[in-house]
Amino acid sequence: MKANRIHNFNPGPAALPLPVLEEIQESFLNYKRCGMSIVEMSHRSKEFEAILGDAILRTKRLLKLDDRFHVLFLQGGATLQFAMIPMNFLTDGGSADYVNTGTWSTNAIKEARVLNKPIQVVASSEDKQFTYIPGPITFNPGAVYAHITSNNTIRGTQWSRFPDTRGVPIIADMSSDFMSRPFDARPFGLVYAGAQKNIGPAGVTLVIVRDDLLARVPENLPVMLKYTTFSSKNSLYNTPPAFAIYVVQLVLKWIEETVGGLENMASVNRAKAERLYRCIDESGGFYRGTAEPASRSQMNVTFRLAGEDLEKRFLDEATKNGLGGLKGHRSVGGCRASLYNAVSMEAVDALVEFMNTFAKRNG
Amino acid sequence: MKANRIHNFNPGPAALPLPVLEEIQESFLNYKRCGMSIVEMSHRSKEFEAILGDAILRTKRLLKLDDRFHVLFLQGGATLQFAMIPMNFLTDGGSADYVNTGTWSTNAIKEARVLNKPIQVVASSEDKQFTYIPGPITFNPGAVYAHITSNNTIRGTQWSRFPDTRGVPIIADMSSDFMSRPFDARPFGLVYAGAQKNIGPAGVTLVIVRDDLLARVPENLPVMLKYTTFSSKNSLYNTPPAFAIYVVQLVLKWIEETVGGLENMASVNRAKAERLYRCIDESGGFYRGTAEPASRSQMNVTFRLAGEDLEKRFLDEATKNGLGGLKGHRSVGGCRASLYNAVSMEAVDALVEFMNTFAKRNG
Repeated sequence: MKANRIHNFNPGPAALPLPVLEEIQESFLNYKRCGMSIVEMSHRSKEFEAILGDAILRTKRLLKLDDRFHVLFLQGGATLQFAMIPMNFLTDGGSADYVNTGTWSTNAIKEARVLNKPIQVVASSEDKQFTYIPGPITFNPGAVYAHITSNNTIRGTQWSRFPDTRGVPIIADMSSDFMSRPFDARPFGLVYAGAQKNIGPAGVTLVIVRDDLLARVPENLPVMLKYTTFSSKNSLYNTPPAFAIYVVQLVLKWIEETVGGLENMASVNRAKAERLYRCIDESGGFYRGTAEPASRSQMNVTFRLAGEDLEKRFLDEATKNGLGGLKGHRSVGGCRASLYNAVSMEAVDALVEFMNTFAKRNG
Repeated sequence: MKANRIHNFNPGPAALPLPVLEEIQESFLNYKRCGMSIVEMSHRSKEFEAILGDAILRTKRLLKLDDRFHVLFLQGGATLQFAMIPMNFLTDGGSADYVNTGTWSTNAIKEARVLNKPIQVVASSEDKQFTYIPGPITFNPGAVYAHITSNNTIRGTQWSRFPDTRGVPIIADMSSDFMSRPFDARPFGLVYAGAQKNIGPAGVTLVIVRDDLLARVPENLPVMLKYTTFSSKNSLYNTPPAFAIYVVQLVLKWIEETVGGLENMASVNRAKAERLYRCIDESGGFYRGTAEPASRSQMNVTFRLAGEDLEKRFLDEATKNGLGGLKGHRSVGGCRASLYNAVSMEAVDALVEFMNTFAKRNG
C-alpha cells in the first residue's frame, strides 16, 4: 500500500493499476507539454487521435484480432448495448438466441423483448439461482447471433470455455472479464465491455464488432444508436468520453508492457483466484463458496459465512484492516472479493491472511 | 499561465478552471482519505453519493429551479438527446416545433425525422448561412414542445432572449452556454448540455427536466433511453460516468463559491466578449465578425481575416504565442475564440494584444 491506499476489492468501478494512476496525476495539468490538461484537449487534436489510435491498436494486438474486427468506444454502459444489439442486428425478421446466466443476461433479454424483437432463451441456470453455467447447449442454426454473459459478477460464475455455436456469431457481454484472459475472437460477432472493471474508469464501453454484423445495421436508426456511426467515424462522430478512453489506453499499455500480455495477465488472475478459493475450501465450512466449483469465476469470488451478523462483523473488521469493497451485491447479500486485473497478489495475500485469522478467532 | 499552460480557446472540450484541475490532481490517488482514487470508487459509495447530491443541489441553486425540475446525468452527448427527446415526448401523435439556427439544430431535426416523428420547423436562419437568430416566431399552440439551440458554436450566434412560446414548453440544447448566465427556467420543459464546454470534461450530459414532460414518457422504451429511468433512480440505474460528474461538481462549486454565482459569471463572460468584439470592430476591417451583431454569441467569437493564407499565418503565430484552439470549425473555416466560463479575462487580454499587434504588422 502507498499513500494510505487500501486494498480495493470493489466490484466496479474497481481498482486501477497504481502506475497508471500516478502517470495520470503527474501529467494532469499539462499533457505531453501541449499546455493543457487531458480533459481540456480537443478530441480532434493530434494528441488525442494518438491516444485513441494506440488504444485501438493495443486492443487488436492483445486479442490478436484480424482485419474483420473494428474496435469502437461508446457510452451508456453494457445496458445500452442490451438495446443496441437487437436494434442493429434483428431487423429483417431474424431471431437470436440468448443464454440466461444471471441478472445481466436477464436484463439483456428484457431489452430485446421491450423492442419486440424475436429471441429465444436456449439455456438458463435460473433453476439454481444462477449458481452455474449451463451446458452443453443446442443453438438454433439460423439464429442471427447467440448472446452470452461471459462472467456473472453477482453470483460469481464464469464461462471457462465458450460454447460451440456451430457458426452462429457469438455476442458476449464481457464487461467483467474483458482483457483478464486471452480468447479466440473468431467465433464472436460482437464483444462489449463497460470499462470500469478491468480496463478503466466508468464512462466508456469498448465494443469489438465484425464486418458481417456491421453489414446488417439498418439506415433508419438514430445516429448514436447505430454501430456504423462509430465504425465509419473512428468513434469520433461526436465528442467521445476522452478522459475515460485515455485511461483505457494507459491500462492496455500496462497490460501489454508491464504485465507482458494477456497470457501473463491470465496466469496472474488464475493464481489470485486459486489462492482465495483454496482459503475458502480449506476453512472447514467457515466460509462457503456460493457458485458451483466448475463454474467459479476468477473475477468475482462470492462466499457466505454462517450468518448475517457474522458477515457484518467480517466486513467491518475487513474495512478496519484496509480491505475494502468486500460486500456482496445488494440483491443477494453475503461477501464478494473482486479480483480484477489491477488487484495484486499482495492484496489477495493480505485478504487471505485476514480471512484465516478471522476464521480462527470466530470458528 | 502556470506550469507552461497555454491560453486555451478550444471550442470543446475546453478550458477548465485551474483550481479545479489542481484539486483533482492533488487528491487523485486518494480521494478524501477513502484510500482510493475517485476513478476506483463505487458509484454506490457514500462518497460518490455526496458528490452527485452536491452537483444536483448546486445546479438547482444556481438556476433557482423549483421542485418540478429534476437534474439528471446521462451519456451520449447532445446527439443522443436529439433522439431521446422525440422518443420520450412525441408518443401519442403529438407534434413538436423546431427552430433551425445551425448544424446542431439541423441534426436535432434529422433525428426526429429518422424516428418518423411529426415535427414542424417554424423558423430558420438557413437563408443567411445561420448568421443570425430568427424572430419573432409564431409557435403552434398545440405543440408538445418547442426545440431551440441556445448558442451556435459554429457560426457564433446566441439567443440573447429566449422566445415567447405562449406556454409551449421550451426544450433547449444549451451545450455551449449552459451555466454561463442565469435564465428563467420556468418556461422550459427540458434543458440539456454536454458538459465539455462550460461545466466539465466530455463524457456526461446534464439534463434538467420538468414533471409534466416526465409524465409523457412511455413504458416501452429501452431502459437507457427513458428519462424516467434516470429520474426514478437518481441517475444511478447503472454505473454513471463518475469521474465526469465529479469534475462537474467541482466546477459548479467554483462557479458558486469562487465566482459568486451566475450573475457574476455572466458579467465576466459579457466583459470578455465585449472586449474581443471591440477589438474586431475597431480593427478597421482587418478582422471581420461573421455573425450579425444583434445575434453575436458571448461564448464563441467567430471572425475572418482577408484570406485563408493570412488566417493560417494568424493561427500559426497565435499558437507560437501560447494562444491555442483558435481555428474555426472545419465545416466553415476562419477563426473562432471560445470564451467559456474557465477562460479568464487575462487570456482575452493576451489574445487582444496579440490580435492588435498582428493587425498592425500585417494591415
